[in-house]
Amino acid sequence: MAASDHPPGPSVFDAEQHGATVRIRLDVAYDGTEFSGWAVQPGLRTVEGELGQGLETILRSPVRLVVGGRTDAGVHARGSVAHTDVPADAWRRLPGRSRRTPEQAALTRLAGVLPGDIVVRAAQVVSSDFDARFSALRRRYRYRLCDHPPSADPLRRRDTVVVRQRLDVEAMNRAAGVLIGLHDFASFCKPREGATTIRTLQEFSFARTPDGVVEGTVVADAFCHSMVRALVGAAVTVGHGKREVPWVEQVLAARQRDPAVPVMPAHGLCLEEIIYPPPEEYATRAAEARTRRKLR
Amino acid sequence: MAASDHPPGPSVFDAEQHGATVRIRLDVAYDGTEFSGWAVQPGLRTVEGELGQGLETILRSPVRLVVGGRTDAGVHARGSVAHTDVPADAWRRLPGRSRRTPEQAALTRLAGVLPGDIVVRAAQVVSSDFDARFSALRRRYRYRLCDHPPSADPLRRRDTVVVRQRLDVEAMNRAAGVLIGLHDFASFCKPREGATTIRTLQEFSFARTPDGVVEGTVVADAFCHSMVRALVGAAVTVGHGKREVPWVEQVLAARQRDPAVPVMPAHGLCLEEIIYPPPEEYATRAAEARTRRKLR
Repeated sequence: MAASDHPPGPSVFDAEQHGATVRIRLDVAYDGTEFSGWAVQPGLRTVEGELGQGLETILRSPVRLVVGGRTDAGVHARGSVAHTDVPADAWRRLPGRSRRTPEQAALTRLAGVLPGDIVVRAAQVVSSDFDARFSALRRRYRYRLCDHPPSADPLRRRDTVVVRQRLDVEAMNRAAGVLIGLHDFASFCKPREGATTIRTLQEFSFARTPDGVVEGTVVADAFCHSMVRALVGAAVTVGHGKREVPWVEQVLAARQRDPAVPVMPAHGLCLEEIIYPPPEEYATRAAEARTRRKLR
Repeated sequence: MAASDHPPGPSVFDAEQHGATVRIRLDVAYDGTEFSGWAVQPGLRTVEGELGQGLETILRSPVRLVVGGRTDAGVHARGSVAHTDVPADAWRRLPGRSRRTPEQAALTRLAGVLPGDIVVRAAQVVSSDFDARFSALRRRYRYRLCDHPPSADPLRRRDTVVVRQRLDVEAMNRAAGVLIGLHDFASFCKPREGATTIRTLQEFSFARTPDGVVEGTVVADAFCHSMVRALVGAAVTVGHGKREVPWVEQVLAARQRDPAVPVMPAHGLCLEEIIYPPPEEYATRAAEARTRRKLR
């Protein structure tokens, strides 16, 4: 799912033609229910498409977005981060005659043009070293499961997957534990030509909330396509008692997609946070990440 | 809003024609977004209409519902309670050839026929003393406010009202405090011929959650139409610094609707719980409640 590779393209928008640009970091939340994912696709409603259009409306300038977590259709975000380079004068002009800063004006004006299922939480000028995708240290996702259908909250049905059978959270955590660390996650990824499937899974755990919902937390440096949902699918399989922990070890070691691992539905998944280093490390981190993707 | 008076009607369904009946208590949750409220209205999608139809489908018998909290269009519920009298043999037949109890079978079969925005959480046989409306001791509502639009969670936009200006929660609690107790709440009710507006407000308070949302809790023996939303509107007016606590006292004392009190939007409101006495007090409580409504 998220954070899969981007198509190649300039990350600085046409700076020469438009004079000086500033790089803007956007913190973005969205309800993914009615989006065909993040990435622009012709004829489909996407987060990138709607957000880009909103920015173009308020800036009166074409906008190209780079995101730190490309989510699939139906996946939500509370803490996605994107960057874009915009003409410095368009940015400065945003407040108009108001006393607001361009940052404040951007938030208010975006709220006025964006649909209700996208909220821009922050918009700030960052150094051009910052790359929403490559400067990221890690991504944190949450997956929500309700394992007792009569307890399902109809107000959370858009971001909670209901399963019929009770989940054994301890067993899920044992299954999750064997996956933590640096591994080739090919067994949990949709294969993509030339793309590495080696990742460091830093955290993977489940807990039952006071509401009875089982929440999974998944943190890794990056994820390949459908990886979070397949990892959760493996844990759910064990949580339902259909398989045991050694099976998870076998699946991981096989390094190829196993049809016995269900890819869980998209709507239980939410990109909660993208974690970046301190500003002085943006460039170093981006260079490292770019190199690692190439080498693997 | 909720728990306004019902039209008169038999509370026991046509027992003689259908032989013995059993009284069923239903615990119900719903996302009110796409309902024109609880009560059946011709040509409109209502919770009572959908739930009644679902019950008629699984019981193959006409169903009349009595609810403990009639909610307006757009108001949600996590803990509504209704009762209905159904033919005892239809109830007993529910499990078919399965080994489930009628209670379990009712939940599973209702889940199969109801739309995703209604969940029946429990269905149990109760004594015929139980009256979902009149046996209730009190109703608890929650109101969700986000006072910082960039922090709004798009996944909670269906049950959270966004206000532009920061709310002073302490001031809201001071305003709420003067309303607690036994009062004539005519200033906060849509007037209805012959209906009392005297209520006991047992709890009314606001707190900021870890997510930054301001949650109001409102508990009373019963509420008249639009009362919770007007009470919250008065507190929000004070929380925004537009009025002070003495204004709330004046509004209450005036005992007539004050246009300066905004009736807050329906979608921030959720009926969380209806509280009943122990079974041996069902009948006494119902008799008390009926008498009080008549006398006032």
